[in-house]
Amino acid sequence: MTENVISGELKKDALDYTIDVFHRGRFQLVQPKKIGHRSGMDAMILAATIPDDASGKLADLGAGAGAAGLAVASRVENITVTLVEQSPVMLDFAHRSLALEANAAYHNRIEILGADVTLTGTARRTAGLADRSCNWVILNPPYNDASDRRPPDELRAQARAMSDSDVFEKWLRTACAILAPDGQVSVIARPGSIGLILDAFEGRFGATEITPVHPRPDDEALRILVTAIKHSRAALKICPPLVIHEGAGHQFSERMIALSNGLSELPRRPARKSK
Amino acid sequence: MTENVISGELKKDALDYTIDVFHRGRFQLVQPKKIGHRSGMDAMILAATIPDDASGKLADLGAGAGAAGLAVASRVENITVTLVEQSPVMLDFAHRSLALEANAAYHNRIEILGADVTLTGTARRTAGLADRSCNWVILNPPYNDASDRRPPDELRAQARAMSDSDVFEKWLRTACAILAPDGQVSVIARPGSIGLILDAFEGRFGATEITPVHPRPDDEALRILVTAIKHSRAALKICPPLVIHEGAGHQFSERMIALSNGLSELPRRPARKSK
Repeated sequence: MTENVISGELKKDALDYTIDVFHRGRFQLVQPKKIGHRSGMDAMILAATIPDDASGKLADLGAGAGAAGLAVASRVENITVTLVEQSPVMLDFAHRSLALEANAAYHNRIEILGADVTLTGTARRTAGLADRSCNWVILNPPYNDASDRRPPDELRAQARAMSDSDVFEKWLRTACAILAPDGQVSVIARPGSIGLILDAFEGRFGATEITPVHPRPDDEALRILVTAIKHSRAALKICPPLVIHEGAGHQFSERMIALSNGLSELPRRPARKSK
Repeated sequence: MTENVISGELKKDALDYTIDVFHRGRFQLVQPKKIGHRSGMDAMILAATIPDDASGKLADLGAGAGAAGLAVASRVENITVTLVEQSPVMLDFAHRSLALEANAAYHNRIEILGADVTLTGTARRTAGLADRSCNWVILNPPYNDASDRRPPDELRAQARAMSDSDVFEKWLRTACAILAPDGQVSVIARPGSIGLILDAFEGRFGATEITPVHPRPDDEALRILVTAIKHSRAALKICPPLVIHEGAGHQFSERMIALSNGLSELPRRPARKSK
């Protein structure tokens, strides 16, 4: 299968892959070494938004090699996962990840769907993204940034070709369409995308909860983790921050260690007792 | 002067006022006891966004009795302040506050302007809000909320009559108009207003910095403190949170004690070293 989708320039690099161990060995991931998007912390934090006791169907939009979706499947036993990815190269890595003996436990709970997340209407349904078919959607969309270094390869350039506002508008439109009533969407993004995300939520999602993710307690946030409920009208909340490192060195905080190893959840806040 | 503006129902309540001491005695405030908006923590946090070494002219839009503007004048020696307020009753309290012997030190640096913040164009200029005349604008706009208790009095009802989106759009339009190039706006608001504020910033303000204000470390934010620079195109930042209480009781955090007593600033973040 690899030979069919990897050609020319990409072939040499794409074959240069790593197999990375996540969740203390509970799943593994085949990832390209030098091209595309390599998964790590963002995917683990995103996956943590699905509660331990969740059930039903989850779609991981723009799944890449499958890190976030596998992380959910690894921790949450009663959930089935669809990895949705457009790039043939990354789809191939998702297939290779899922085929690993180490991931055998998830074979009957994870499927891979090659589809363009930005499709609409009949085209979207025909591609396999059925209306109201999911209970959970997680997404970690590609992004542009003038201040980022130029993407060093074709694949990343392609992933970042859409403008940020297009990405959030189109991906969240699909997230809303495929979610069942009261379904939850989870997004990890950069803080600068907050306005675009809230604009794309308009008329689609409410009960928004924003958790800023700071490298250290005194740093600015590097990411925001955003969850929301389809068609809810409840007010937006800003949650206590998640801090990645503690101490002077590169050591992770205890909370981050637990989250990134699939040992704890980062669920939505309980409703206030008095209103 | 009091007799002219207070009549009927309001008169009895409005005469029931308190004189509150702020900044460990460095200024005092005459406030209505039972009507209108009573100032406290929000005004002190808002004022803290003006750096110790700031100079030039500041406008406090919707100043009420003058708490935030007086707090800036008390800590920042090289700044002149215009308290802008539409309500005749609250304007009267601002005049009474400024007339206090305890506030004599600020008489030559504070002026009071009776004007509607939502005016535009010639009407706004005629009312005394000149284009590009300020270096700093602070605002703590009135708000509506379906979940709030109904306003128990006429004055508060009036202050909250506009929709939230109208308030932010109109007040921030005026803030942009009266700020000089590179001028700073500071807003304190509820977290749910973040989308409206960012929408109203569009085309007007950038380099937005959001500081969530949490009652305790594990609580959701109760307020957001937002600063931005006129016509900047720099990216949005989410800053480390400000936590009001520490320990089990109602004790303030050390940082909050310093801020609310005008002993320290809460300035914008320095630019990153490497970009």
